[in-house]
Amino acid sequence: MARNQISCKSKGHKHMILIVGFMKKFTMLSISSWQSALKLGREDPRRLVHALKVGVALTLVSFLYLLEPLFKGVGDNAIWAVITVVVVLEFTAGATLCKGLNRGVGTLCAGSLAFLIEFMAEKTGTIFRAAFIGISVCLIGFLATYLRFIPYIKKNYDYGVVIFLLTFNLITVSSFRKRNVLYLARDRLYTIAIGCGLCLLMSLLILPNWSGEDLHHSTVYKIEGLARSIEACVNEYFQDEDKDNKIMEENSFKDPIFKGYRAVLDSKSIDETLATFASWEPRRHSRHCYRYPWRQYVKLGAVLRHFGYTAVALHGCLESEIQTPRSVRALFRDPCIRVAGEVSKVLAELASSIRNRRRCSSDVLSEHLHKALQDLNSVIKSQPRLFLGSNNAPSNTNMLVDWRHDKHALSEVVLPSVKTDISSILERRSKRVADKSAESAERKVLRPTLSKLAITSLEFSDALPFAAFASLLVEMVARLELVIEEVEELGRAANFKEFSGQDGIA
Amino acid sequence: MARNQISCKSKGHKHMILIVGFMKKFTMLSISSWQSALKLGREDPRRLVHALKVGVALTLVSFLYLLEPLFKGVGDNAIWAVITVVVVLEFTAGATLCKGLNRGVGTLCAGSLAFLIEFMAEKTGTIFRAAFIGISVCLIGFLATYLRFIPYIKKNYDYGVVIFLLTFNLITVSSFRKRNVLYLARDRLYTIAIGCGLCLLMSLLILPNWSGEDLHHSTVYKIEGLARSIEACVNEYFQDEDKDNKIMEENSFKDPIFKGYRAVLDSKSIDETLATFASWEPRRHSRHCYRYPWRQYVKLGAVLRHFGYTAVALHGCLESEIQTPRSVRALFRDPCIRVAGEVSKVLAELASSIRNRRRCSSDVLSEHLHKALQDLNSVIKSQPRLFLGSNNAPSNTNMLVDWRHDKHALSEVVLPSVKTDISSILERRSKRVADKSAESAERKVLRPTLSKLAITSLEFSDALPFAAFASLLVEMVARLELVIEEVEELGRAANFKEFSGQDGIA
Repeated sequence: MARNQISCKSKGHKHMILIVGFMKKFTMLSISSWQSALKLGREDPRRLVHALKVGVALTLVSFLYLLEPLFKGVGDNAIWAVITVVVVLEFTAGATLCKGLNRGVGTLCAGSLAFLIEFMAEKTGTIFRAAFIGISVCLIGFLATYLRFIPYIKKNYDYGVVIFLLTFNLITVSSFRKRNVLYLARDRLYTIAIGCGLCLLMSLLILPNWSGEDLHHSTVYKIEGLARSIEACVNEYFQDEDKDNKIMEENSFKDPIFKGYRAVLDSKSIDETLATFASWEPRRHSRHCYRYPWRQYVKLGAVLRHFGYTAVALHGCLESEIQTPRSVRALFRDPCIRVAGEVSKVLAELASSIRNRRRCSSDVLSEHLHKALQDLNSVIKSQPRLFLGSNNAPSNTNMLVDWRHDKHALSEVVLPSVKTDISSILERRSKRVADKSAESAERKVLRPTLSKLAITSLEFSDALPFAAFASLLVEMVARLELVIEEVEELGRAANFKEFSGQDGIA
Repeated sequence: MARNQISCKSKGHKHMILIVGFMKKFTMLSISSWQSALKLGREDPRRLVHALKVGVALTLVSFLYLLEPLFKGVGDNAIWAVITVVVVLEFTAGATLCKGLNRGVGTLCAGSLAFLIEFMAEKTGTIFRAAFIGISVCLIGFLATYLRFIPYIKKNYDYGVVIFLLTFNLITVSSFRKRNVLYLARDRLYTIAIGCGLCLLMSLLILPNWSGEDLHHSTVYKIEGLARSIEACVNEYFQDEDKDNKIMEENSFKDPIFKGYRAVLDSKSIDETLATFASWEPRRHSRHCYRYPWRQYVKLGAVLRHFGYTAVALHGCLESEIQTPRSVRALFRDPCIRVAGEVSKVLAELASSIRNRRRCSSDVLSEHLHKALQDLNSVIKSQPRLFLGSNNAPSNTNMLVDWRHDKHALSEVVLPSVKTDISSILERRSKRVADKSAESAERKVLRPTLSKLAITSLEFSDALPFAAFASLLVEMVARLELVIEEVEELGRAANFKEFSGQDGIA
């Protein structure tokens, strides 16, 4: 029995330890989630404000139900105002307007159609009426759902169609057993209108967030990111110390170059959504009542994405496994850095012009850029032998002495090394086929080495990768044109103020 | 009066014409929308099926209300089943499950919390109770809305949180005036469960559409598109006839090359959504009950996107304004086309292996590809003078005779042309500053010409663009490695069947 008591005690002790451990874990978890929640708010305080607004709006709308005098006015239907606030109040004014109007129009359309159908079925017998309602529910359900697949409807009126279907079914089906459904629907419409009104008030007048603003700022931010990215990319390419080129996938997410262009690459859906919501928002930045060209931001976004793809390719040159020796790259260092610097400057000027809602300077494509391009051109022309394979080397030692020096050790073994590499590939392959059942992890480690051998053993011409780099830089200048064009188009369409000399260039 | 009659008649005639015109337009519009609706169904007949399913489900669920015996069982709350069907029944099984479970769990949580609050407020006076309800509505509204900003919640449980908030407010606010709210809530829960059940039945058992299937097929389709795109791109680069390079933006959307990689570029959000829904779907392709690695598809998608950026850069080489003369390109035609062909073949094999849910062959990176790369290498090495500027030309006429011939006309005027171009830039710029107020359309026409001049006048080395093209091809092979790795990882994680020799290579 004593043993039993002891085992009981030790059991209790174990339970205590378990409970304490659980408490500790729980405390840790709640602290970490609290911290991440705080971080979320610090990143964008508008989130806190929005959450507060929703809380206040819900309290205000429940007063309709809680306060006696108000409840007498609207009655039980007050609950529909609450539902409306929960569903309609969104983060930005445009989204709220879009949802609110969709809800309103959807409800109205559904109500009208439902009454038309009720009117047609009114005079008939119960069974016929049930059949009629069943068929119309099926048909309208089919049509509305099919309608939602149309891209234009999907983009702008999806929510409206859902609400239409919901309300239509609600009224049509209810009308079978309730006779005063007309009044019911009218009262509900009132309370829904009250709910929508409160939402619009909250999101348009009290600390509003504008989708249009967001789109505007994100465009500026994207252009600035590209500028940073290009400058960092070219600087890293010509850096003196030889960093390990094989950057891990995980690290590349922290890379400033990657961070710069990342926002651009996957911006399509965000841009589209923001532009759709923005197009619902009232104009604020002009005295004239014209349609603000939000679609132009989307078009600019598309051009920026295409520009971004070139930035990705340029970044790819840094991480590529075949590289031009640093001593060769050093020859082209200055003009390349200048071209990149000028491209960044142009982008920065474009970003600043959009931020300040003014046209960009007419000579944004500065002479400096053309000058830098020409310098790059002449430097490349002055190094004519870069494409020379190493077997043709001896005759040309005029200006690439240090490069030759660098390469010397390599050039002697190129041909044999290709041979051994191929044989090693075949060797390893046969080994791999034999080891098929071996640990897969090992295979994964083997593979990259193998291919690195296979590709680098080719040795190509040393200058090939640099040529690609230079060509991408030039390509970038050509695409910059398109970006400038779209920014100018935006300036025209959005009636940005004219450029004055005082604005200066960023 | 007679005149009056005539004018009346002519007015009537005008009205008739207007009405007939309107009727015609209306007919045209309805025909065209009918045709586009038909096209939508032909493109993907599952849309038609889904729309039909929604119609049928709605009719079935309204029987709860329309048929006397069923109505006796559930009563007025039947309407909640209708609402549930409208809101929950989605195109794919995963989406329906996700929404249905979110709705269920959200409702349950909200119900529990609401009863807890009611229990706490029950014993107090009316005013205190109203205040208590108001405060808790505000607080829960704030917390739930803030929770929705957390990315993990937003991605997986957004709908659940909305439903939680909705139900919580519904119950808490109603409970102020209704005493039997517990029973009401229970009955509603029943009918919501009936609605959810019907939705799950409809979407899981009757002609189901699986998000996982969609993700699987879209991945295969994307890889195939890349393969087509690369092959078309390289073929076009070496095409004999000299097409107009300045392809208009509109045309480029119909371009087969663009069509091939377009699906890859903007696939991020679609992939993420499909993977999220797919992770809710039950397993069907295996006897074991393990988690199917849908995230691996998303990772593969990311690698494919990065591969796609190289394809975009390669396509950029085609549309670039500085071009290597066709006669020079022709020298490298065969090895380049072979490299591209081999890359396409590897991609096609990867696509086919994923489609058939089998591992890819261990020698998918065939010797042919390495052989083709080596040939490209040796051809490039055998043409050592490509980087030669035209001013150094005369001494080298050994093997590029036809190219020189091609270039001859140009090379004589390069230096002066640079000069005139720069002066023309300056000239035009000063003109532009003066004409600032002139028509903007004209400026738009002027600008591209100007820049085309400015860039092409640089003339670089003729081989530079080709070097970029070749380098991108090689880069592509390096990235192909990463794609293969991810596909193999997918094969392992998803337990695809082993590769057997009979499968053959696509």
